[in-house]
Amino acid sequence: MSSKRASQYHQVEIPPPQPFLKSLKNTLNEILFADDPFRRIRNESKTSKKIELGLRHVFPILEWARGYSLEYLKSDVISGITIASLAIPQGISYAQLANLPPILGLYSSLVPPLVYAIMGSSRDLAVGTVAVASLLTAAMLGKEVNAVVNPKLYLHLAFTATFFAGLMQTCLGLLRLGFVVEILSHAAIVGFMGGAATVVCLQQLKGLLGLHHFTHSTDIVTVLRSIFSQSHMWRWESGVLGCCFLIFLLTTKYISKKRPKLFWISAMSPLVSVIFGTIFLYFLHDQFHGIQFIGELKKGINPPSITHLVFTPPYVMLALKVGIITGVIALAEGIAVGRSFAMYKNYNIDGNKEMIAFGMMNILGSFSSCYLTTGPFSRSAVNYNAGCKTALSNVVMAVAVAVTLLFLTPLFFYTPLVVLSSIIIAAMLGLVDYEAAIHLWKLDKFDFFVCLSAYLGVVFGTIEIGLILSVGISVMRLVLFVGRPKIYVMGNIQNSEIYRNIEHYPQAITRSSLLILHIDGPIYFANSTYLRDRIGRWIDEEEDKLRTSGDISLQYIVLDMSAVGNIDTSGISMLEELNKILGRRELKLVIANPGAEVMKKLSKSTFIESIGKERIYLTVAEAVAACDFMLHTAKPDSPVPEFNNV
Amino acid sequence: MSSKRASQYHQVEIPPPQPFLKSLKNTLNEILFADDPFRRIRNESKTSKKIELGLRHVFPILEWARGYSLEYLKSDVISGITIASLAIPQGISYAQLANLPPILGLYSSLVPPLVYAIMGSSRDLAVGTVAVASLLTAAMLGKEVNAVVNPKLYLHLAFTATFFAGLMQTCLGLLRLGFVVEILSHAAIVGFMGGAATVVCLQQLKGLLGLHHFTHSTDIVTVLRSIFSQSHMWRWESGVLGCCFLIFLLTTKYISKKRPKLFWISAMSPLVSVIFGTIFLYFLHDQFHGIQFIGELKKGINPPSITHLVFTPPYVMLALKVGIITGVIALAEGIAVGRSFAMYKNYNIDGNKEMIAFGMMNILGSFSSCYLTTGPFSRSAVNYNAGCKTALSNVVMAVAVAVTLLFLTPLFFYTPLVVLSSIIIAAMLGLVDYEAAIHLWKLDKFDFFVCLSAYLGVVFGTIEIGLILSVGISVMRLVLFVGRPKIYVMGNIQNSEIYRNIEHYPQAITRSSLLILHIDGPIYFANSTYLRDRIGRWIDEEEDKLRTSGDISLQYIVLDMSAVGNIDTSGISMLEELNKILGRRELKLVIANPGAEVMKKLSKSTFIESIGKERIYLTVAEAVAACDFMLHTAKPDSPVPEFNNV
Repeated sequence: MSSKRASQYHQVEIPPPQPFLKSLKNTLNEILFADDPFRRIRNESKTSKKIELGLRHVFPILEWARGYSLEYLKSDVISGITIASLAIPQGISYAQLANLPPILGLYSSLVPPLVYAIMGSSRDLAVGTVAVASLLTAAMLGKEVNAVVNPKLYLHLAFTATFFAGLMQTCLGLLRLGFVVEILSHAAIVGFMGGAATVVCLQQLKGLLGLHHFTHSTDIVTVLRSIFSQSHMWRWESGVLGCCFLIFLLTTKYISKKRPKLFWISAMSPLVSVIFGTIFLYFLHDQFHGIQFIGELKKGINPPSITHLVFTPPYVMLALKVGIITGVIALAEGIAVGRSFAMYKNYNIDGNKEMIAFGMMNILGSFSSCYLTTGPFSRSAVNYNAGCKTALSNVVMAVAVAVTLLFLTPLFFYTPLVVLSSIIIAAMLGLVDYEAAIHLWKLDKFDFFVCLSAYLGVVFGTIEIGLILSVGISVMRLVLFVGRPKIYVMGNIQNSEIYRNIEHYPQAITRSSLLILHIDGPIYFANSTYLRDRIGRWIDEEEDKLRTSGDISLQYIVLDMSAVGNIDTSGISMLEELNKILGRRELKLVIANPGAEVMKKLSKSTFIESIGKERIYLTVAEAVAACDFMLHTAKPDSPVPEFNNV
Repeated sequence: MSSKRASQYHQVEIPPPQPFLKSLKNTLNEILFADDPFRRIRNESKTSKKIELGLRHVFPILEWARGYSLEYLKSDVISGITIASLAIPQGISYAQLANLPPILGLYSSLVPPLVYAIMGSSRDLAVGTVAVASLLTAAMLGKEVNAVVNPKLYLHLAFTATFFAGLMQTCLGLLRLGFVVEILSHAAIVGFMGGAATVVCLQQLKGLLGLHHFTHSTDIVTVLRSIFSQSHMWRWESGVLGCCFLIFLLTTKYISKKRPKLFWISAMSPLVSVIFGTIFLYFLHDQFHGIQFIGELKKGINPPSITHLVFTPPYVMLALKVGIITGVIALAEGIAVGRSFAMYKNYNIDGNKEMIAFGMMNILGSFSSCYLTTGPFSRSAVNYNAGCKTALSNVVMAVAVAVTLLFLTPLFFYTPLVVLSSIIIAAMLGLVDYEAAIHLWKLDKFDFFVCLSAYLGVVFGTIEIGLILSVGISVMRLVLFVGRPKIYVMGNIQNSEIYRNIEHYPQAITRSSLLILHIDGPIYFANSTYLRDRIGRWIDEEEDKLRTSGDISLQYIVLDMSAVGNIDTSGISMLEELNKILGRRELKLVIANPGAEVMKKLSKSTFIESIGKERIYLTVAEAVAACDFMLHTAKPDSPVPEFNNV
């Protein structure tokens, strides 16, 4: 009889078994080559063409250089000069923040942009150093090596860390492990960046108040204590000058934000501040002793530093650690920036290729006296607004910086440090994205919680604590999702074959003889105990309800597996156990719509045999119809005789 | 027109917004009180009855003592004496393994079983020390404190670690965080236990060969090197005696396995071995100098040890670490054992309550000269086979051990250590569960990989490395599941409204104007980039196919969200971005069957507005019908005019 009945329903098929190596290859392909980057190369038949496409894949410059026009050149020169005017003061400021010689900020805007122009696939990204990675370098290296006492070692370790960061970035890209960056959720990045920006601003109080001694910690409590304990050392000249420039910078920023066409006002304002500040101090440095200035910058372009890399213990481990952490942070920012602008202009960016480009620019940078660079948001936004067309704007910027290094460095002698602090603060305030945090609160409380913990971790702990917290909580969320999948009761939507969650659709109708449960996630070791308990509780509650109402007793439990993407051995054991438990309670387990992966695994175990193939249906509606049929044909004294073969 | 059309289809509802605190409470309830343990107490109206139920909840002895009968007592006494005969030699052996005085093994079979009898909810669990936790204690404590040079400190630290283990177990139970144990998957436990058993066996070669010096490492390479470098010190008398007993023990084990009714043969064999070995050595210890023996065991029951707990640095941190790690391992074993036997006999065990019982027995144990105890599998299996009815068998065992401690300890003076080694090896060989590993390989390659890494990590690294590896890989699997959800194309099963994976059901029919994609998992930060790329690739491939076949071009992309259990802010941004990208490619995005959670989040964002409410359908079939309708009513020159309000 069961064979006759089965023909009325759709058969649930067992996918044909795949050889292990083939399925492994498919899985790895899905994980590592999701976007199928070599499709064009593979589809090409001629070998010479294949090589050409391969070269163009590795060096995107070959791609865009062919269609390059004079029109493009004009745009790129304008945007290149604009970002150079931002890059020079910002570079010096961030180098200060990293406790490195200011000139390193200029060096770092010379070699890396040239490398990126050849290998990078973004048209809008402007290469340079970033505040957070600079501060992180200072905080992590500074814990072990004092930059004032031992500046040479500190400098060499910074190069080595940059080398390791580049090496790691290149390796991640080559191994196509770009997805490790995805472990930082958007919420975590908002919180982390906001926290880091707050910390960076706090650090600037040193420059703003003209203090000479300062704590090495970055947490808000220690920093504020350090500042207020030295209140007798505060220099009012420094503070007043700093505030003036800060107001000027923030005003220009505000104007540019209101009118995006006037982007050049805020782009030029740091350079204007530097020029005015320098002129001011050049004439009045005798009157204002309290104001510190940069001093001499060495003339000439990047000296080689490849021989300065430190590969001997004990410091190599420190450099490795700093390199990996700063490298990941820099990568996350650079790739996010590249992706956002690519989306505006509707072109595609391959994250893994970008990683290789970032990695190469840091490796070559570490050989030529640069420290960690990436694609900072502020500089790239200016580049985009200035109308850049290709990565050539980076080349123009590099040339402008080279000219500065060769001829103009003496002009920066009297540049006040307080101006640099103002520039950093103005740039950082935009990173405290409270609007995004409010948006998170509205949309998803858990994301807000991740964001807040990252922020508080950075501000009250250290940058690393904030990072670990945000990654940890993000991963915990994923684990919790798998560990506690929703199970809900389904009901029938009237006059249809549709079954839906009765909480979501209260009009859906349930039946007393059967309970339809939908499992909303994979069945894994992390949730199999929970699922077993929770299903048991649903049944208990349902039976309690029926007992009080005096209805027909429960006979069938239909498990809707539509949303069960996968199952592991613990999950299969749980199902077998559940089937036994239900059997003892004189209930029958029925399965609806198991997916391909689940069916494959179940067919390899003894579960299908023990439950009976005729108790697996393609849809909930068919499972219900079959249960109905069995209920009505069963004799009253022997509830469901057809199934005593189980 | 869209309002008229909408009435033909089922409406997708937006669940009413829940106050934040209420939804938080519901979520926490689901996570922490999944099995609703207090239902009976809550449903009771009288306060006195409530208190009674509460007390019975905390002390299950009140539950089973009321229905206790003489019949039960007979069974419990028999099984209690049987497990005592196993507990005494095993206890001494495992204490040796932990580098603790042998008498501690007896002490640990006295107090903890009494505590468990009062608080534990399993009827079959027999309490005692376990080999893996003993070895782990030796390995972790031994690294910092030498048990030979400083036995007193070592002993006190073992008590302190036991105290911390108990404290942690109690806290986990009270906070209802029992699910942290679930992070150890079945596969990981198989591998870990097998590895630990291998390591324990290797350690026994010391006793078997009568060696005096031995390495403190546990990895196979170091241990084998240590053994073979001392080949001139091997004692053949010891080896021969050990092998004889080992053969005897394994034979009895084999017999009991073949005929479960003869369980008492293997249960008694350790005691028989001890008795024979002791008599043998008592008469012949002058002839066989090479065989080491236990020596004097102090008479009398457990002395108090509460004043010996070490709470001062630097050792408190060590004890804390050892306590937490051994405590988790012990918990995992004890709960798994309790659950398995409860399943055989069809009663329920609350993991959190069990944790409190284990925790209390270890805390009180640490006050009375016991070290870490749990519910070992071997002893509990013997208890079960001996026909125990309630936890009273533990009390009987404790009494038997107390009698031994008070009167019989001198009898163990000449017990050969090599007999203890044989007992441990015989017990451990059963834990190398190669059949389970083969089963894993057949069912799920990834689980096998987890199992193998745990095994190799323990055997070639350290026990901790094995543990970290297995937890790490298990968690990675969960993250990978969320990070790379399957997306597949759906087709229509002929003569039905059913849509299914076309790879699973090759007969399902697809249509050229629309592409139906099913997302098999939640949309989270960890997968949103992947999903966007992968959807883009599906569309590219579909358009390529249509272009070569000259079919009608693609117009609609239907996303089936049935299996999308949840979405976070990154996921929502991805959908918004996807909608924009599709818009630029002149494709329309249509959503089918979003769940309650997803609908709630989407309704809070601007996504529903931007896509239009009329493009969200309850089923794939309705979405397809609506697309069809729009395709046929649209004029040829303006593809889908109704939607220009998007």
